[in-house]
Amino acid sequence: MDTLQIINTLEKVKQQNPLVHNITNVVVTNFTANGLLALGASPVMAYAKEEVADMAKISGALVLNIGTLTSDEIEAMIIAGKSANDHGVPVIFDPVGAGATPYRTETSRKIIDELSISILRGNSAEIANVIGEAQTIKGVDAGKEAGNTVELAQKAAKMLKTTVIITGKDDVITDGETTYVVHNGHPILTKVTGSGCLLSSIIGAFTAVEKNVLLASISALSIYGIAAEIAASNKASDGPGSFQIELLNRLATISAEEIQGHIKIEKL
Amino acid sequence: MDTLQIINTLEKVKQQNPLVHNITNVVVTNFTANGLLALGASPVMAYAKEEVADMAKISGALVLNIGTLTSDEIEAMIIAGKSANDHGVPVIFDPVGAGATPYRTETSRKIIDELSISILRGNSAEIANVIGEAQTIKGVDAGKEAGNTVELAQKAAKMLKTTVIITGKDDVITDGETTYVVHNGHPILTKVTGSGCLLSSIIGAFTAVEKNVLLASISALSIYGIAAEIAASNKASDGPGSFQIELLNRLATISAEEIQGHIKIEKL
Amino acid sequence: MDTLQIINTLEKVKQQNPLVHNITNVVVTNFTANGLLALGASPVMAYAKEEVADMAKISGALVLNIGTLTSDEIEAMIIAGKSANDHGVPVIFDPVGAGATPYRTETSRKIIDELSISILRGNSAEIANVIGEAQTIKGVDAGKEAGNTVELAQKAAKMLKTTVIITGKDDVITDGETTYVVHNGHPILTKVTGSGCLLSSIIGAFTAVEKNVLLASISALSIYGIAAEIAASNKASDGPGSFQIELLNRLATISAEEIQGHIKIEKL
Repeated sequence: MDTLQIINTLEKVKQQNPLVHNITNVVVTNFTANGLLALGASPVMAYAKEEVADMAKISGALVLNIGTLTSDEIEAMIIAGKSANDHGVPVIFDPVGAGATPYRTETSRKIIDELSISILRGNSAEIANVIGEAQTIKGVDAGKEAGNTVELAQKAAKMLKTTVIITGKDDVITDGETTYVVHNGHPILTKVTGSGCLLSSIIGAFTAVEKNVLLASISALSIYGIAAEIAASNKASDGPGSFQIELLNRLATISAEEIQGHIKIEKL
Repeated sequence: MDTLQIINTLEKVKQQNPLVHNITNVVVTNFTANGLLALGASPVMAYAKEEVADMAKISGALVLNIGTLTSDEIEAMIIAGKSANDHGVPVIFDPVGAGATPYRTETSRKIIDELSISILRGNSAEIANVIGEAQTIKGVDAGKEAGNTVELAQKAAKMLKTTVIITGKDDVITDGETTYVVHNGHPILTKVTGSGCLLSSIIGAFTAVEKNVLLASISALSIYGIAAEIAASNKASDGPGSFQIELLNRLATISAEEIQGHIKIEKL
Repeated sequence: MDTLQIINTLEKVKQQNPLVHNITNVVVTNFTANGLLALGASPVMAYAKEEVADMAKISGALVLNIGTLTSDEIEAMIIAGKSANDHGVPVIFDPVGAGATPYRTETSRKIIDELSISILRGNSAEIANVIGEAQTIKGVDAGKEAGNTVELAQKAAKMLKTTVIITGKDDVITDGETTYVVHNGHPILTKVTGSGCLLSSIIGAFTAVEKNVLLASISALSIYGIAAEIAASNKASDGPGSFQIELLNRLATISAEEIQGHIKIEKL
């Protein structure tokens, strides 16, 4: 996986403007839509069970995020996901807060059971809870990273037969066989609500234009992480408010040169 | 329609602080409320069928936006709209994504059938789909503008017996007899989610203080477009994040001199 | 109540990162979450009746805000509130728009009747309407402050046997016996949607780490007000968009020196 492939995948997002259907939480809708627009994708949010099958099938990717789940929304996610599965549209699942309440854990497992998920993305506590490993979580933010996230990601990928991404200080991407670590990103991302949710939707945008799921994932993670690094070097000292706005700016303008200058990917 | 009338209409918004009741989508609530506050209006969002009739009747305008519609929300929109109609409160309707799914198209027609709408605002694909003309739409963003938007707007206005606004590169306003084109605005608006939704709510604020619907509409479109132009000249090169914030700043501070210096209205 | 106690309470928020469970309106979710993160707290939004009891009981505070109430959400608030009451988790209630519609007034009273509320925070019109005093309200923004807010707050506190905070030009805090006025803050806060809602959630964060409700409240009000003053002196002239972002920045960075230099608390 070389840097030119990654730059090329970003170029495909900008040229194809893929429609990304998000069923996501009410905290991050605006930030997610603006982040996708900045990158060059076309966001849509649609939640009604009367229309989600229609919207999912015309989309390039479907992103499911249970950050503020309700029973109606879960029903819509299942309907949308089945439509996506039937029409070859990749489904990205972000099990926000799995482990924080039994309802979130059970719902996460139900979604994974009933749908074919292309990518599962979460922090280590969420992924651990999804597969029944004990790891504490406080609300929707990860606890201290315990144990080996590479091992956890590989175990989850094999158990669930999907690509798993665990984000944290470093980001691990694995399909159970091949494993990469992306070392880009910046700690101030944890001070912006929805920075992980937006990343899941951006992964969706990349899977919409690139069938190789590992390439799409690594492209999304490295480019998002680099945009965050540049935004942080410009604005982190001003505070998290200014950083959040600058991140949108940098997602819109990130260049091939910046990617080449910052990228830090490791194949295990 | 001269520029002084438009400046005067803005002055009325600032002095009367009209209450604008929005039943809008979950992506744009915050940006819409902040945009209305910046302009000098008083936003309220209320969705419960138990209260929307009460809220609509004390408001200066009711804005209905189906960007993330659900069956409960549609029911509330109809209740609110009937209350607005009964109490002489103008209703602005923004059929977000009409044509993208059958549910959006059918819901748009139901709202227009059951309520008396003062202004219908959308992009050309949305308006075309509302009146049954074929035009493609991708998600909730307009496709390439095909055909003659002036003709389309006039046809829709005559068919629906209402004022129709089609926004795009240029904005067309028509009641079917008299037609204006506003040439203000900036392309970077398409990189900010909810820039069209906010415009619909701002049109609501102007109709709350000015009974002449064409004057209210043209005032809203030109002032919003000019604020966007000035914001873009200050911040577009920084990126869409900074532009979005600067647009709020400029809506709060736009002056009579700026309006006179930038306004570009054409009567057809 | 001296300034060192207040600085110390902020320090406890930053060290303990309390989980604050918000059931709040769809307009302010993002701003509230970012404000809590900036301050050092850990926000969670959870609305499903299947999980709110579980989430409330592991939280440091529960904040209920009826800004965009629906019947499902009210049901969830009651369930969450009872769980919080059972587990000693303080409940902060923000009766947004009480008095604007009968539904909001009745719902506010129902919540107060069925739950044990630690702190009731609103503008004077909202608090007046909750206790059945006549005071007009326009939508969700306070009308002109009429009458004596100190007297109103004390009357409400005695009647409801809780701590009452009325915010406005000055902020009044009282448990019915002891009354403080905080003179910090800035008028541009009224141009940012959700500035009061965020304050309620920040009060929640302080009550999560400090059992003395008056100390927690005064700490929250003075620190929020000072952050707003500093943000305004940096950015108010740019406009409300820039001020909103700068407020998040300043909540993240406010120092003991800034608190000591700006604080204006009065014991009545």
